[in-house]
Amino acid sequence: MTATDLLDLRRDLHRHPEPAWREFYTTARIVEELKRRDLDALYVGPDVLADDRVGVPDDDDLETWRERARSAGARADILDRLDGGRTGALAVVERGEGPTVGLRVDIDALPIREADTADHHPAAAGFRSEHEGYMHACGHDAHTTMGIGVLDAVLDSEFAGTLKVFFQPGEERIVGGEPMADSGHLDDVDYLYAVHIGLDHPSGEVVAGIDGFLAVAQFGAEFRGASSHAGARPEAGDNAMQAAATAIGNLYGIPRHSEGATRVNVGVIEGGTATNIVPGRVAIEGEVRGDTTDLMEYMDDSARRVIESAAETHGCEVAVDNLGRAPSARSDAELREVVAGVARTTDGVTSLLGSDHLGGSEDATYLMRRVQQRGGKASYVGIGTDHPGGHHTPTFDVDEDTVGLGIEVLAGAIVETASRRP
Amino acid sequence: MTATDLLDLRRDLHRHPEPAWREFYTTARIVEELKRRDLDALYVGPDVLADDRVGVPDDDDLETWRERARSAGARADILDRLDGGRTGALAVVERGEGPTVGLRVDIDALPIREADTADHHPAAAGFRSEHEGYMHACGHDAHTTMGIGVLDAVLDSEFAGTLKVFFQPGEERIVGGEPMADSGHLDDVDYLYAVHIGLDHPSGEVVAGIDGFLAVAQFGAEFRGASSHAGARPEAGDNAMQAAATAIGNLYGIPRHSEGATRVNVGVIEGGTATNIVPGRVAIEGEVRGDTTDLMEYMDDSARRVIESAAETHGCEVAVDNLGRAPSARSDAELREVVAGVARTTDGVTSLLGSDHLGGSEDATYLMRRVQQRGGKASYVGIGTDHPGGHHTPTFDVDEDTVGLGIEVLAGAIVETASRRP
Amino acid sequence: MTATDLLDLRRDLHRHPEPAWREFYTTARIVEELKRRDLDALYVGPDVLADDRVGVPDDDDLETWRERARSAGARADILDRLDGGRTGALAVVERGEGPTVGLRVDIDALPIREADTADHHPAAAGFRSEHEGYMHACGHDAHTTMGIGVLDAVLDSEFAGTLKVFFQPGEERIVGGEPMADSGHLDDVDYLYAVHIGLDHPSGEVVAGIDGFLAVAQFGAEFRGASSHAGARPEAGDNAMQAAATAIGNLYGIPRHSEGATRVNVGVIEGGTATNIVPGRVAIEGEVRGDTTDLMEYMDDSARRVIESAAETHGCEVAVDNLGRAPSARSDAELREVVAGVARTTDGVTSLLGSDHLGGSEDATYLMRRVQQRGGKASYVGIGTDHPGGHHTPTFDVDEDTVGLGIEVLAGAIVETASRRP
Amino acid sequence: MTATDLLDLRRDLHRHPEPAWREFYTTARIVEELKRRDLDALYVGPDVLADDRVGVPDDDDLETWRERARSAGARADILDRLDGGRTGALAVVERGEGPTVGLRVDIDALPIREADTADHHPAAAGFRSEHEGYMHACGHDAHTTMGIGVLDAVLDSEFAGTLKVFFQPGEERIVGGEPMADSGHLDDVDYLYAVHIGLDHPSGEVVAGIDGFLAVAQFGAEFRGASSHAGARPEAGDNAMQAAATAIGNLYGIPRHSEGATRVNVGVIEGGTATNIVPGRVAIEGEVRGDTTDLMEYMDDSARRVIESAAETHGCEVAVDNLGRAPSARSDAELREVVAGVARTTDGVTSLLGSDHLGGSEDATYLMRRVQQRGGKASYVGIGTDHPGGHHTPTFDVDEDTVGLGIEVLAGAIVETASRRP
Repeated sequence: MTATDLLDLRRDLHRHPEPAWREFYTTARIVEELKRRDLDALYVGPDVLADDRVGVPDDDDLETWRERARSAGARADILDRLDGGRTGALAVVERGEGPTVGLRVDIDALPIREADTADHHPAAAGFRSEHEGYMHACGHDAHTTMGIGVLDAVLDSEFAGTLKVFFQPGEERIVGGEPMADSGHLDDVDYLYAVHIGLDHPSGEVVAGIDGFLAVAQFGAEFRGASSHAGARPEAGDNAMQAAATAIGNLYGIPRHSEGATRVNVGVIEGGTATNIVPGRVAIEGEVRGDTTDLMEYMDDSARRVIESAAETHGCEVAVDNLGRAPSARSDAELREVVAGVARTTDGVTSLLGSDHLGGSEDATYLMRRVQQRGGKASYVGIGTDHPGGHHTPTFDVDEDTVGLGIEVLAGAIVETASRRP
Repeated sequence: MTATDLLDLRRDLHRHPEPAWREFYTTARIVEELKRRDLDALYVGPDVLADDRVGVPDDDDLETWRERARSAGARADILDRLDGGRTGALAVVERGEGPTVGLRVDIDALPIREADTADHHPAAAGFRSEHEGYMHACGHDAHTTMGIGVLDAVLDSEFAGTLKVFFQPGEERIVGGEPMADSGHLDDVDYLYAVHIGLDHPSGEVVAGIDGFLAVAQFGAEFRGASSHAGARPEAGDNAMQAAATAIGNLYGIPRHSEGATRVNVGVIEGGTATNIVPGRVAIEGEVRGDTTDLMEYMDDSARRVIESAAETHGCEVAVDNLGRAPSARSDAELREVVAGVARTTDGVTSLLGSDHLGGSEDATYLMRRVQQRGGKASYVGIGTDHPGGHHTPTFDVDEDTVGLGIEVLAGAIVETASRRP
Repeated sequence: MTATDLLDLRRDLHRHPEPAWREFYTTARIVEELKRRDLDALYVGPDVLADDRVGVPDDDDLETWRERARSAGARADILDRLDGGRTGALAVVERGEGPTVGLRVDIDALPIREADTADHHPAAAGFRSEHEGYMHACGHDAHTTMGIGVLDAVLDSEFAGTLKVFFQPGEERIVGGEPMADSGHLDDVDYLYAVHIGLDHPSGEVVAGIDGFLAVAQFGAEFRGASSHAGARPEAGDNAMQAAATAIGNLYGIPRHSEGATRVNVGVIEGGTATNIVPGRVAIEGEVRGDTTDLMEYMDDSARRVIESAAETHGCEVAVDNLGRAPSARSDAELREVVAGVARTTDGVTSLLGSDHLGGSEDATYLMRRVQQRGGKASYVGIGTDHPGGHHTPTFDVDEDTVGLGIEVLAGAIVETASRRP
Repeated sequence: MTATDLLDLRRDLHRHPEPAWREFYTTARIVEELKRRDLDALYVGPDVLADDRVGVPDDDDLETWRERARSAGARADILDRLDGGRTGALAVVERGEGPTVGLRVDIDALPIREADTADHHPAAAGFRSEHEGYMHACGHDAHTTMGIGVLDAVLDSEFAGTLKVFFQPGEERIVGGEPMADSGHLDDVDYLYAVHIGLDHPSGEVVAGIDGFLAVAQFGAEFRGASSHAGARPEAGDNAMQAAATAIGNLYGIPRHSEGATRVNVGVIEGGTATNIVPGRVAIEGEVRGDTTDLMEYMDDSARRVIESAAETHGCEVAVDNLGRAPSARSDAELREVVAGVARTTDGVTSLLGSDHLGGSEDATYLMRRVQQRGGKASYVGIGTDHPGGHHTPTFDVDEDTVGLGIEVLAGAIVETASRRP
């Protein structure tokens, strides 16, 4: 694929942003491209995901997005394979003796309305989001394009071994990493790379391996009590509002931990019907994090105890749902050195960082951990890009020249890695 | 107007339920009827309300409802007079020497979706709500009809004095009573009746005067802090969720009062954007009540202090709005006796209660208090009706025969009252 | 006993104030007096109390007070009968045919340091408390004296029937009423009077029957978690301080009740050891009340649920103890009329109230309820007295002249009551 | 001083434990020893402390302890100099050209009752605490002894420069460090050592430099509202209990910080008088900490806002007092290497750690920071000792042989350090 083709692909994806489990157009477009290549195997949607998933929308919602993809020109035969919003793909290339090297890219978008001002390049250049209210505001369109580009570059190289390129859905909601990690396809991977563009690193800068992923668990909790008239029968209510307030107050009060950073947040709340009705239902959504998966689980266990006790305090029931989760992970020094070595000799790389600290969460960690737990190595590579607006804002955009640079560094690292013996 | 006409009117109103400040069709329909009568004065919308109002919807909302009224056949010339959602009307009849007697009926409906099952009479008989999601679920359609019916009955009687029939908007949100009470039209009223149908009293039962209105004040509070990423920068947020939770917990903890009953409720909450964002905005709606207006004000003062301190606790700002309010009131024994006397001799009245205890709130109390503070008397009369579902539920309905009975009792009481000298 | 003797007795009791279950001197002094009278029966301590008691001090504490009583001159043979702090007494007189009429007086004192300034009469006149830190600050010394005085007056009268004078311990902690009510001695009482002096009624005023007793239940709750170093191992603690704070916040938030007044208070707290230790133990003491016993029980049930859930919220255990309780009660109209009739003809009574509203709690209600549940009647009589300081303050004192007046009214009422046939 | 003398000194100090600002006997004993040495300067009490101090007991308390010291044989002329509980001392030795090297030891004890069982060595060997309820449970008796021992050892050595040995009061309450740091005596110190025995390191182990001191600020807060009768007048109270509970709940909820660990604890609470009184006064004591002084101050600022707002929420006043504080600090690598070098060649040192993480707080950091801010270096040295019970427990004791070992290592390090040129 030429640089121009890659550019077109990225812009086509940018025009069609799709959130978690609705990546119909995106998956169809990826698979369409992959089918044109000389692959040894191609897995689509249901074949790259374990059965257990969370955050799956209802059928109406899924059909709306599948139909939208169809209208936008996605191939019907591919769409038909993405049952129940099982999106994503995996391309496998075998080129002689050598280790199995993986690359993971994520493909989903965000529920953000893209800027439409003249100084926003996608708007000016005519590839602004056509799904109003949704946007590739975190660069996953570039990641997907890199996945195709790296595949081409490796196919063109001296690469000896097996290459697996994972196109993962649902990263933004951290719901796609776990089922892909549990699909079995990671189990023979010796080395895994994941990639992210931007992250406040400028064009020309490469980060050989990112650390500091916080493990995270997101939850929803619906408090259900009994409504009553607040004036006439206040005692007849089981007040879900009081239950939620008690839970919130105490969630933030979960003790800090001496072994590392923890986090807790209740990010969304909604409930009640009228000022004069004792609320019988209030729902919250929140999350806990930790420097390590253990610390996150300490927070998660404590949070559940707090939520359930708060419900009991006010005679309510509560249902707690997992929304999404991701473990912590660390980039291995061995792969970091490979990337650094390649980056040093790549034209256009003007700055090289051995490592950086994320301080946020990412479900690539599920795939990294799967590989590492089985004795493999992993690294999460950062490719700098000048981005006008911050990640997750309406004016986010990437410097398109860095997509090619990222492909070059990643392909180089993959080839070099395969030359090693696990 | 014949009994059949009254029935048709009630059903027409039932088909067109409108919430507070959107009673366009209802007001137009009332005015249309009143214009056919021999009145001494007719005041419409802006002319029956003082300027200060709360709970007024935005212009788009108002226009939507005005347009809906127009499409349903409401007279354009009347709609044009209801600027800014100033709805309601007042009919005045002067018949010789005598005191001024008032009757207040309320005209607005509720945001409840009406039942559409065969056992729900309005659905079966073809006059179910045509404004989906809104419903006359508290009988104000019957009250409005009684207002017209009483006017006719008094015009047909030996009545000597002045009769004022007040058609009040916005009772359900307790926003209409105060501006109508402050309009000046109550200032010469010597005796005032207000009426409510149902209230768990069966058909044939009359309550001569209802007491036990709790004074009420409804409020909205919007907590505004600063958002931040809950994983990367938890300390940068000023957490509106924590502020709201602290407020809620402490609002319910406002001390009870030795002088009478008090109430507090936070009925609605909404805020935050995502699990991983420290919420920068959370809004609540709630209310306080008291056996007396003083007790309500004790609660209101305490609530404001709690809300403002809770905001400060978490570095947030908060804006507190009045949503609606109503004072307490008592029915005067003198009028109670008049009603009881009339009811005893009215065919169809099978049970008579001297008084009952409401335990809720009503903004008729603004009008009652206005009259009582100037030396007049007031009573809040209950007309029983068999209602299949409770008030404010989707299956509420009235026994239509009781509308005529109510008219007879009220008109009788008004005539008898006028025969007294203030 | 002459008026002077009664005055001496009251002052002697005033000098020896004893709190709940330590009324050794007081009981010995009462019994000493009673033994001098011509009684048909005399029951002491263990014989006037059912077995179940709460709030009993430990043996060391009891022995300290018993020893103090001995040193003050109390008769050793009587003290020996008051095992385990089982104090109090009952005098029975049978005088021919007639109903059984009871009088209940309470005998205990308060943990308050009595004023020692010249304007405090007991200090000036030399009968200030000799038990430093304890004081008859609620007039029970006068009540006890009245009990003896009424007995003498009735013995001197035409009384026909049975008189039982109950000297009840532990009213201030509301721990004495229940075991005395359950002793069996109330079961044949047809009419019961209880008496209180003062209550902001002036000398010369009599209240024929007091109502508005709130039912009350007092509780202690000890939260037990696990201590840890707050800097080094915050996560290792199960924080009893957070548990207690959560409980307190939510206790005050127990919903108000539409059927009447309720109360809740956490009056005492204590716990923790050092700023740098996560507290493993925090204890609270509190109470709930209600207009009726049912309302109190609604509060009590809610309070227990709140306390237990709050403990769970922070991984703590909690032990909840009953400290004291008393039901609600109402004075019967029949006895109220008897008292009013007598008071009207008693010299020195300058003002008569048919009833008054207490708004507090009293465990005489246990005895009243026992009698009423078995078909008898009861009234709680108020005898006014000018008291310089409020009840339960260091400058409380009674107008000694009103003791005689109270005796006259009560004895008169008892004689008159006995002349009725149950 | 011989090893036996040192042993006797340690045991004498152990028999006379004194808490913060009451170290009368201890200071007198230290000064008595120092006066026997050939010092260039000796500063006592008021001369080693800046004026501003917190946590100073009242005069009665101070006199009790001074009198106790006198009775135990402390020299009256020295005691007379310790006005207002200004305890502690500083010994200065000048030995030719060279840098100024300081050693800081702390001298105070804890309010813990020492074990008196046979397996507790001080009890068995006859030097258990003679101040019942107080105990050297953290080894400061050993530290003080080391201070004297190091002085002797340096005087006996080739040392060239100035030696300052600081005997600091009030470490356990972290109240002594700041006034000593601000005394001026640290301002010319080029190198400073502080020392702690034990800390779970066994006999024979040396830690060259300890890090991970959390900055800490301790506070007391007294909430003052208005009492009222909880049954009769609940609305008349301004409830200090609710204020305290609201404060506690929200203190633990102060947001975590992305830049490092923070801590918060409410360690002590006490207030209220009776179950039936709305509490007018509740006092808490607590603390905040941070990895850095900035982080501690973030917590401290937040805590004050929470406490003040919580008071306002319930109409209360609150007075917040500083109890004690200490900044964070780090041990410098240069001094760590010196200690490590000496330890490696010291007989009896069987294990050497370059560094350890404390995770607690210590006000030696005030002195370290003072030196470091002026360009000097500091290290906090750990001397292992087998201790049967944990620090701050009734069975804590030190292995007395390690006192000599500590002296040898510290004196060696001081001599070696002085041989460097700053």
